[in-house]
Amino acid sequence: MPRYVPASSMESPRFTGPSTFARLPYVQTLEDVDLAVVGVPFDTGVTYRVGGRFGPNAVRAASVMLRPYNPNLEVAPFELLSCVDAGDVAIVPGYTQRSYTAIEHHVAPIVEAGVVPLLIGGDHACTLPHLRATRSRGPVAVIDFDSHTDAWDSYFDERYNHGTWMRRAIEEGLVDTAHSIEVGLRGSLYGAADWTSLTDELGLAYLTTEQVLAMTAEQVAGAIRARVGDRPAFISFDIDVVDPAFAPGTGTPEPGGLSSHEALAIVRRLTGIDFVGFDVVEVIPAYDPAGQTAFLAANLAYEMLSLVALRRRDRS
Amino acid sequence: MPRYVPASSMESPRFTGPSTFARLPYVQTLEDVDLAVVGVPFDTGVTYRVGGRFGPNAVRAASVMLRPYNPNLEVAPFELLSCVDAGDVAIVPGYTQRSYTAIEHHVAPIVEAGVVPLLIGGDHACTLPHLRATRSRGPVAVIDFDSHTDAWDSYFDERYNHGTWMRRAIEEGLVDTAHSIEVGLRGSLYGAADWTSLTDELGLAYLTTEQVLAMTAEQVAGAIRARVGDRPAFISFDIDVVDPAFAPGTGTPEPGGLSSHEALAIVRRLTGIDFVGFDVVEVIPAYDPAGQTAFLAANLAYEMLSLVALRRRDRS
Amino acid sequence: MPRYVPASSMESPRFTGPSTFARLPYVQTLEDVDLAVVGVPFDTGVTYRVGGRFGPNAVRAASVMLRPYNPNLEVAPFELLSCVDAGDVAIVPGYTQRSYTAIEHHVAPIVEAGVVPLLIGGDHACTLPHLRATRSRGPVAVIDFDSHTDAWDSYFDERYNHGTWMRRAIEEGLVDTAHSIEVGLRGSLYGAADWTSLTDELGLAYLTTEQVLAMTAEQVAGAIRARVGDRPAFISFDIDVVDPAFAPGTGTPEPGGLSSHEALAIVRRLTGIDFVGFDVVEVIPAYDPAGQTAFLAANLAYEMLSLVALRRRDRS
Amino acid sequence: MPRYVPASSMESPRFTGPSTFARLPYVQTLEDVDLAVVGVPFDTGVTYRVGGRFGPNAVRAASVMLRPYNPNLEVAPFELLSCVDAGDVAIVPGYTQRSYTAIEHHVAPIVEAGVVPLLIGGDHACTLPHLRATRSRGPVAVIDFDSHTDAWDSYFDERYNHGTWMRRAIEEGLVDTAHSIEVGLRGSLYGAADWTSLTDELGLAYLTTEQVLAMTAEQVAGAIRARVGDRPAFISFDIDVVDPAFAPGTGTPEPGGLSSHEALAIVRRLTGIDFVGFDVVEVIPAYDPAGQTAFLAANLAYEMLSLVALRRRDRS
Amino acid sequence: MPRYVPASSMESPRFTGPSTFARLPYVQTLEDVDLAVVGVPFDTGVTYRVGGRFGPNAVRAASVMLRPYNPNLEVAPFELLSCVDAGDVAIVPGYTQRSYTAIEHHVAPIVEAGVVPLLIGGDHACTLPHLRATRSRGPVAVIDFDSHTDAWDSYFDERYNHGTWMRRAIEEGLVDTAHSIEVGLRGSLYGAADWTSLTDELGLAYLTTEQVLAMTAEQVAGAIRARVGDRPAFISFDIDVVDPAFAPGTGTPEPGGLSSHEALAIVRRLTGIDFVGFDVVEVIPAYDPAGQTAFLAANLAYEMLSLVALRRRDRS
Amino acid sequence: MPRYVPASSMESPRFTGPSTFARLPYVQTLEDVDLAVVGVPFDTGVTYRVGGRFGPNAVRAASVMLRPYNPNLEVAPFELLSCVDAGDVAIVPGYTQRSYTAIEHHVAPIVEAGVVPLLIGGDHACTLPHLRATRSRGPVAVIDFDSHTDAWDSYFDERYNHGTWMRRAIEEGLVDTAHSIEVGLRGSLYGAADWTSLTDELGLAYLTTEQVLAMTAEQVAGAIRARVGDRPAFISFDIDVVDPAFAPGTGTPEPGGLSSHEALAIVRRLTGIDFVGFDVVEVIPAYDPAGQTAFLAANLAYEMLSLVALRRRDRS
Repeated sequence: MPRYVPASSMESPRFTGPSTFARLPYVQTLEDVDLAVVGVPFDTGVTYRVGGRFGPNAVRAASVMLRPYNPNLEVAPFELLSCVDAGDVAIVPGYTQRSYTAIEHHVAPIVEAGVVPLLIGGDHACTLPHLRATRSRGPVAVIDFDSHTDAWDSYFDERYNHGTWMRRAIEEGLVDTAHSIEVGLRGSLYGAADWTSLTDELGLAYLTTEQVLAMTAEQVAGAIRARVGDRPAFISFDIDVVDPAFAPGTGTPEPGGLSSHEALAIVRRLTGIDFVGFDVVEVIPAYDPAGQTAFLAANLAYEMLSLVALRRRDRS
Repeated sequence: MPRYVPASSMESPRFTGPSTFARLPYVQTLEDVDLAVVGVPFDTGVTYRVGGRFGPNAVRAASVMLRPYNPNLEVAPFELLSCVDAGDVAIVPGYTQRSYTAIEHHVAPIVEAGVVPLLIGGDHACTLPHLRATRSRGPVAVIDFDSHTDAWDSYFDERYNHGTWMRRAIEEGLVDTAHSIEVGLRGSLYGAADWTSLTDELGLAYLTTEQVLAMTAEQVAGAIRARVGDRPAFISFDIDVVDPAFAPGTGTPEPGGLSSHEALAIVRRLTGIDFVGFDVVEVIPAYDPAGQTAFLAANLAYEMLSLVALRRRDRS
Repeated sequence: MPRYVPASSMESPRFTGPSTFARLPYVQTLEDVDLAVVGVPFDTGVTYRVGGRFGPNAVRAASVMLRPYNPNLEVAPFELLSCVDAGDVAIVPGYTQRSYTAIEHHVAPIVEAGVVPLLIGGDHACTLPHLRATRSRGPVAVIDFDSHTDAWDSYFDERYNHGTWMRRAIEEGLVDTAHSIEVGLRGSLYGAADWTSLTDELGLAYLTTEQVLAMTAEQVAGAIRARVGDRPAFISFDIDVVDPAFAPGTGTPEPGGLSSHEALAIVRRLTGIDFVGFDVVEVIPAYDPAGQTAFLAANLAYEMLSLVALRRRDRS
Repeated sequence: MPRYVPASSMESPRFTGPSTFARLPYVQTLEDVDLAVVGVPFDTGVTYRVGGRFGPNAVRAASVMLRPYNPNLEVAPFELLSCVDAGDVAIVPGYTQRSYTAIEHHVAPIVEAGVVPLLIGGDHACTLPHLRATRSRGPVAVIDFDSHTDAWDSYFDERYNHGTWMRRAIEEGLVDTAHSIEVGLRGSLYGAADWTSLTDELGLAYLTTEQVLAMTAEQVAGAIRARVGDRPAFISFDIDVVDPAFAPGTGTPEPGGLSSHEALAIVRRLTGIDFVGFDVVEVIPAYDPAGQTAFLAANLAYEMLSLVALRRRDRS
Repeated sequence: MPRYVPASSMESPRFTGPSTFARLPYVQTLEDVDLAVVGVPFDTGVTYRVGGRFGPNAVRAASVMLRPYNPNLEVAPFELLSCVDAGDVAIVPGYTQRSYTAIEHHVAPIVEAGVVPLLIGGDHACTLPHLRATRSRGPVAVIDFDSHTDAWDSYFDERYNHGTWMRRAIEEGLVDTAHSIEVGLRGSLYGAADWTSLTDELGLAYLTTEQVLAMTAEQVAGAIRARVGDRPAFISFDIDVVDPAFAPGTGTPEPGGLSSHEALAIVRRLTGIDFVGFDVVEVIPAYDPAGQTAFLAANLAYEMLSLVALRRRDRS
Repeated sequence: MPRYVPASSMESPRFTGPSTFARLPYVQTLEDVDLAVVGVPFDTGVTYRVGGRFGPNAVRAASVMLRPYNPNLEVAPFELLSCVDAGDVAIVPGYTQRSYTAIEHHVAPIVEAGVVPLLIGGDHACTLPHLRATRSRGPVAVIDFDSHTDAWDSYFDERYNHGTWMRRAIEEGLVDTAHSIEVGLRGSLYGAADWTSLTDELGLAYLTTEQVLAMTAEQVAGAIRARVGDRPAFISFDIDVVDPAFAPGTGTPEPGGLSSHEALAIVRRLTGIDFVGFDVVEVIPAYDPAGQTAFLAANLAYEMLSLVALRRRDRS
């Protein structure tokens, strides 16, 4: 068995003790660790609703409901992977550049140790330093589930926030654009080029929500897998790709999105990919009175770590 | 006309007076009664979120919106059935065995009088004494809509709670397993056997949420009807089979579930079955700020009583 | 460029200043105006939950998220139409007839000036005076998205409320019934005739939610377009046609409805129609803790004004 | 013992069954009844927040916490008085005059039978028909706890709403102004005369919140008692006299008010008065997420009925 | 400096990482520990609202706001005491006796090691096993802040729940009744003897809320101190002694209580007492939408541990 | 009459139209203006809860309840002062220095035109640029109502946020420290010097909450007035000086504070002072479910503008 495993909910109720992700041990070491869940309570990058700083702990609280066996992927991830809750990055609220540095310095050693980081945001701006932290793995294929492109050049003449990280990451050479894809785009735009320039200018592929909803989950996953190929890959999951009915607790809600089932069904079919990192972002508990957004985020993270476990099993 | 009918919402507004189910008379007799709605404000059996003790009154408050004609089933149930709100079982909060006795003693006379009980929970643990109360009708075919199997052997070495009632009921000979089925299973498990042992060990059939969502409502209803056959049957509807977007007010939410429409569509197609009882459980108003869970529960109950009315009409 | 355009969210954040619809100028003139958004904070007509008086401002607050390009319709509406927020009608709370007069007197000049009114309710009772205000355009083809017929004769012997406006409007000769249609009917009824009399007695067509969900959005839009033909048309969108998961903030929730995506997909396909007015009604912020209902209403209104822009572009 | 007494919370939990006021029997008779609690779910009279139609049932739900002995007044009211929950008046939402008639017709027989009515609102507009219903007892001394005078002449040129009932009642000769008093006035006014005209023009006494807070509860009660003398008296308690911290669930909150303790302490000291009626109004559950407003209202009503019991005991 | 101290909020923001009480280390050892905060997520003992199982983590989340210097007591407690968050007791939800055993077995070693336990509930029923765990210190003087006596003999013929623990503890010889006192009693009773029997039968002193509010904080503290004398003492603080405006998130709210300021002022004046344990109970987050109850509970706990620090300093 | 006055709530209901402060005209001019309400939706400066960007509009929505006559000060402010809602500063979310510049550039011209600015925050960090904008009036006497000193040197080594503005303002020579005072300090500290250094190092006076609560409002106001003397003065009102029961919607709640009544009573007694500016900050609507914080903030602002009107009247 792996060194680090969740506390058993048959022995102590799920609600006992300070909540860690999936009731995993809260440790700071990387030794004997395969996957590390890291909270990134950064929300200075948002342009509308704010409060993602409380996202990591809300997702932790919901994640205590996770059980050890994933029936869809037929894998018991915690028997295959040593997983830990590595706590939160000590970001600096109100200060983006210093927070970016803190995030990168926290996560890069994880990646360099061969451990897979799974970040819980926090707003989407934190994906830029997350990608910087994966630099040792070369430009990565980014699979961005999102209703927004996040590829604008600036907001209010500022280049660093939750709407520009993708463009910055590409400019910094962190993204293997030819193998990257945005999934779930929808909502009103500043102009038609918001979408078309993703391909024309940046070299990304994309699927709109309309396209996703016209396909099966298998088809969507197939399209993503074809795009990514065998490159080291990274999933960034902005919870707002899901409809506000399923994920009300977010900052820039766009009605007309995927259901939780559709989102989970796509993510869990992304088997066979070499993942070097994940994040689930834009959960804002202040707008999530019944907790459904946090429960969904926890389950998405569980599918992600199951994909890592599955690949490890299938390759061994 | 039946002796007991709802108050007219054309004469007094729906929100007037202490709310009873569907504005039915609140009476304690069984004479001239065909169907009795019974609240079971028991929530001592839960392992995570709690508060189902306020479920029956929340469902009553929402149910005042129900009108007398069911257009999907083309039946006016209150013209065919004399229905009452029989109040709540005087359960003992914090004491499971005494509450079980109270529930069984309250409901058994209803069943024995040939009246159909429709219970509003409360947590799912109350289905065990509910099934005990149907003993006079022999082992019954249980149709359990649920995201969880509720067939674990124990939690914390305790054998009576909302996660074990199905196993206990089978052990007590209350369930006609060969004609019973669980519908809507999903979410992470303790192990693969959680599901497979339902069939292998307990003799139950089941459909996962994945399977249900790949079928039409008619197909699901057909599969259930084929399983049940002509046996006396019982629906237990755990509201958590529905996705948390539609039913946030519940105790163990599992993202990725059915929509309200899908749930209603399946239930209302279960025509032609000889029902000896129903329950709708796991509604927790404290997590239902806009009331949508209670409205759904009330409508599910309405479909259930419509099925009874329809069968009565078709057989007479 | 049109005279009146939204404030740019690249220059001042969306949340700055008193919110107007889509950050449009708040002006009282009709000169150089093509479309006027008007709030109707009237909620005296409701029979169950109340509070739509705060609907217009909640929708305004959500609508600041709208951006200038509609990618589904491939149109930049604010480049084609001069749109304003014309403020609210000074209705008289608690007094229906005086409020009706105020609404009609406020809106009729808009219609007569050739400006398209887009009303944000308020309860559905305000559609009657809205239709009276369109009298100069002759009887109009009404497309009513609604889970209820709103064609009852009276409640409590009163003829003017949110459940009777359609019948009153027909009686007053405001509706071109042969080209009108109700879309999304569902939920329990007072009797079978609630629906059948729409056709038999009133001459309206209708599609139930069951029918809508069995069709594609294109098919539903096609059926509506075929019904409306080339007549001047009017969309009244009761937010309760959408399922309470997507629109919890409403007065008479009916579980089992359309998703936000389905609703938006149908509305935006109603191209090629000559619209003389729109309303989006029955948003009650007190039951919308995360704001998803208001976001949906704002997006529906955006699709409506995009339809006007599109037709203008295609005809010029 | 009286004929009608509350259900025992030692036998069935407080939360069982449809909630009636203080778990009293819900009966429609006046025989063997001393005091009748009546819900008045009327909220058409409000000028700002709305939703008092759900007030009676929210107060009922909270009132199940009331126990049979009042230690402050040293009286067991239910041993001295036969109390019932008489249900709600079938008001007509949206229609003030018809609702007024319904309220008066419902309550007048209660008064005429010598039973004390205790009304749970609903908005303050319902106090006018309540006072009409006490006409058989002659003009009554009104003790109005309120932050507002409710003596304006009209709103929007309409004379009947929650801000004008006191003036109307005086005009109709229902108020013994020389023995009446308003208690707790505060907040911004339309003009200085709002307060001074109460005395100068209408002949009422008043105490502002500032004055009340500068006195002890005994002093305030003494001033009220001195004003009322031995006249038949009536308490109208608008929950907004209490600070919004203690009573957030109301329609026109005025910060800077009494605490719950201060309000309860004054009311319960109003011993020795011949009460012919009471009401507690302006509770709006939609703005009372934790229920504290409803709990306070229930306790105020309990003090009121204790005063009746006490007087009966002291006089027998 | 003590071995265990809080994380610095000048280095990492308060909201980072899984929340522990006051950001103290979460450790399981008793070595080098002076005071241990222990969560008791037990809520099976309640008779009305339920959900205290989420209380410990809600209080932890609020307690991250605590800073190291207490200006009222002029003490820096964490410089004097080595404090830890010892996690939660693995109670068994739904099973009182087993939970009692778990609590006692968890806490007794703490007491026996000379460490002061500070329990965060959970419902008040957990004070009984907490007192059992202090048996090694002899019968203790209990200072119970509470609006209820919790000295009833049984509910529904059951002897163990949150309304009976005081009587049970006295019967078991755990309470030094001659030096114990209940503070803040109020609200309706089952009978006059509810209070008088505390003294007459059980030998406890008590102060009602009315008495407390007529005294200064110093006077109340003086009365308590006089009662306790030099006996080993124990504070049990039921958050419902505070008014629901200040502590809405609780199970049996009683309007008319102390303010937060009054409660804090009394507790912090209880200097010079030899405390062997503390608990703060009956916080239910589901009814605490803005968190004020949890913030108050955290601050009360901080005053308690400051009292221990102060005594240690003054005696050294 | 002044040029700009509020809309009459006797003609259009308070809830009509986009809400401006007190229903004042929303204009951008300074001509014929005496006092300008300015929203500052900046919340990048906070260290715990965030969301003050929605504060200005929440206060606007609540302020529509304000009526034209202030009975405590016996003044009709809008008859004496021409007041406007000047909209919001176009701050840059996430960027403190640019936001500071925007605030200063927006407000300085107001001050220089002899118009009194009344800012609605936003977080307390915005008081620094607000004070910079008053530089033309020389160092000002600052009256800071606050539970925190906001005079720390830095957080996370950053010098600009909501906990350091007072120290920065003093360093920049903006504060006439010899006439300035902090009122309402309480809560745990980093060290004793947090308070004592205010005087010892910075030259400020202060009153703790304990001191304030031991004085009458007149005494507190007298102490402030004596401190300020005849210097140009500035009130900064951090809503967290009030207890969380009265102001739950704030970022760093400290239990044990003033009541709304106490706060209002002090502010309104600050007559006879030459005010050059005001702000009311730290209102976060996401934690204010019933709106009581916003109502209080609106009333505090109303007292402030009344003080200006009163002084103008008394001097003319």
